[in-house]
Amino acid sequence: MLSEFSLIDRFFARRARTTPRAALGIGDDCALLTPRADEMLAISTDMLVEGRHFLADVDPHALGHKALAVNLSDLAAMGAKPRAFTLALALPQARESWLGAFSEGLFEIAERFDCELVGGDTTSGPLNICITVFGEVQPQHALRRDAAQPGDDIWISGTLGDARAGLGVLRGEWPASAEDTAAFRKALEKPEPRVALGIALRGHARAALDISDGLAGDLRHILERSRVNARVDADAVPRSAALRRLPADVQRRCTLAGGDDYELCFTAPVSAREAIEAAGNSVAVHVTRIGTISALQTGAPAIMWHDAAGTPLTLTLQGFDHFHAD
Amino acid sequence: MLSEFSLIDRFFARRARTTPRAALGIGDDCALLTPRADEMLAISTDMLVEGRHFLADVDPHALGHKALAVNLSDLAAMGAKPRAFTLALALPQARESWLGAFSEGLFEIAERFDCELVGGDTTSGPLNICITVFGEVQPQHALRRDAAQPGDDIWISGTLGDARAGLGVLRGEWPASAEDTAAFRKALEKPEPRVALGIALRGHARAALDISDGLAGDLRHILERSRVNARVDADAVPRSAALRRLPADVQRRCTLAGGDDYELCFTAPVSAREAIEAAGNSVAVHVTRIGTISALQTGAPAIMWHDAAGTPLTLTLQGFDHFHAD
Repeated sequence: MLSEFSLIDRFFARRARTTPRAALGIGDDCALLTPRADEMLAISTDMLVEGRHFLADVDPHALGHKALAVNLSDLAAMGAKPRAFTLALALPQARESWLGAFSEGLFEIAERFDCELVGGDTTSGPLNICITVFGEVQPQHALRRDAAQPGDDIWISGTLGDARAGLGVLRGEWPASAEDTAAFRKALEKPEPRVALGIALRGHARAALDISDGLAGDLRHILERSRVNARVDADAVPRSAALRRLPADVQRRCTLAGGDDYELCFTAPVSAREAIEAAGNSVAVHVTRIGTISALQTGAPAIMWHDAAGTPLTLTLQGFDHFHAD
Repeated sequence: MLSEFSLIDRFFARRARTTPRAALGIGDDCALLTPRADEMLAISTDMLVEGRHFLADVDPHALGHKALAVNLSDLAAMGAKPRAFTLALALPQARESWLGAFSEGLFEIAERFDCELVGGDTTSGPLNICITVFGEVQPQHALRRDAAQPGDDIWISGTLGDARAGLGVLRGEWPASAEDTAAFRKALEKPEPRVALGIALRGHARAALDISDGLAGDLRHILERSRVNARVDADAVPRSAALRRLPADVQRRCTLAGGDDYELCFTAPVSAREAIEAAGNSVAVHVTRIGTISALQTGAPAIMWHDAAGTPLTLTLQGFDHFHAD
């Protein structure tokens, strides 16, 4: 087995060193980062574990991509611009082919989003990937979960449900064509963080988050933090052509409680509709209005679901088994 | 099993919220941190895995302490003042008594060092603790590994070897009295990060690091980054009264290649000797000179060991089994 230092050096430090922007990166006790004037540092950390967040036979290149993508998605949901990340990695054994593909997938997305590896730790142990990511955003532009206001539109980027549909195909819960399976699997393994959209929404959107545990559960976090209710058209939730070919009840469960979507759910005043559409167009990401924020009367914040005809729906999504549910 | 959100809330978020200083902490997509003007952010991440960094039957209160202590030790080695940390935690199951004790140990040391929990992630999985810590230091004061110069003294804080001696007792490698065993075990399970010393050394010390993998291996990192050699008196390396009661060869292996010490090893010019002693006195930490940095002639940087009489020693420490060796 490779030692910690040769491991870090061979697969991570050497490549990280080709474009150093931090004052001090890998190889010292700490990385040193100079924050830009007037910018706040947005920080998020995610831990990925085999069996909970990815399957044992996952392509390591895709895993490298996804490990950073889910963290970049948190920055996107804050309207923050990616800057740097640290990687802590526990591995049962150091297989060179696995590490080569994993680091390749990781650096491809890191370089695409201009996010520099500044530090890390490697150890032997059951496979575990923990990334902490750093971004920058001015205080007045941060898209916080507690900023939704009654009357706001509720918006979704892209489409929901494909990742959960892909997990269902892999698990044999429902069949799909080879072409649709490939589309679902791409959504599951290679989510695209909506970083450019998050930045384009600065000054237009109010509250935002990224959907990792399913729309029904995640939207509730905005409602609880903002102390508001929501009214949502379940049929308006955008879905892909491939997902439309699955049974209607599967579509609904996948879009509303699927998880692993990494799309943005955000609120914005009605007066911002044109600006939101323009923001989506400017970064080539489709945005869809699915509902409205309303004032909280009494009790706990809640989502009132209805169908396209306006008929109220009673949804029991609690029992639906997410991939990413803990 | 508790869900992610109730877990975070019950054991971590509620307590973190009692002293919030970050602009936005737990409960949003990201934490938001406003760096102070002219300060750089020092960032370090460490992953602790059962069997590699702690034993399966470790006291969870001590584990909570140690998980943050080893990260604070990295800040100390940079001369940085602790500010905040994130915690990612994978747990096989959510046992309330374990979590209660773990979080108690964690928050005790966090509060003592004024280091705020600002974000995190919890998931089910094999026990894994990943902490990323943030501190502040002005660029000209950072104690980097690449700053040692020929003629510098080499200093050590506290004593070395007790943690490894304690592991040896637990493993049955050597016996010790109940009293000595307790002292060793405290060093192993409750290391005290030298944060105040690191700050007191600003402007006086040149290069520094914290000893986590053993003096022999860690000092080499300073030598390699600074492109210098070192001459070290193996008998001058400070050791506790308890360690002095173990056989001489065990003392030597524990002090030079033991690991898990979390003491500082640093260099400083001869002209700073009084200032270094004063810095140690000001924070009640004993500091000891053990050797001298010399110019690199040819080849790879190396440590020349000798004993108290000045006789050169040929040490073969490579095969010594560290606890923390990966």
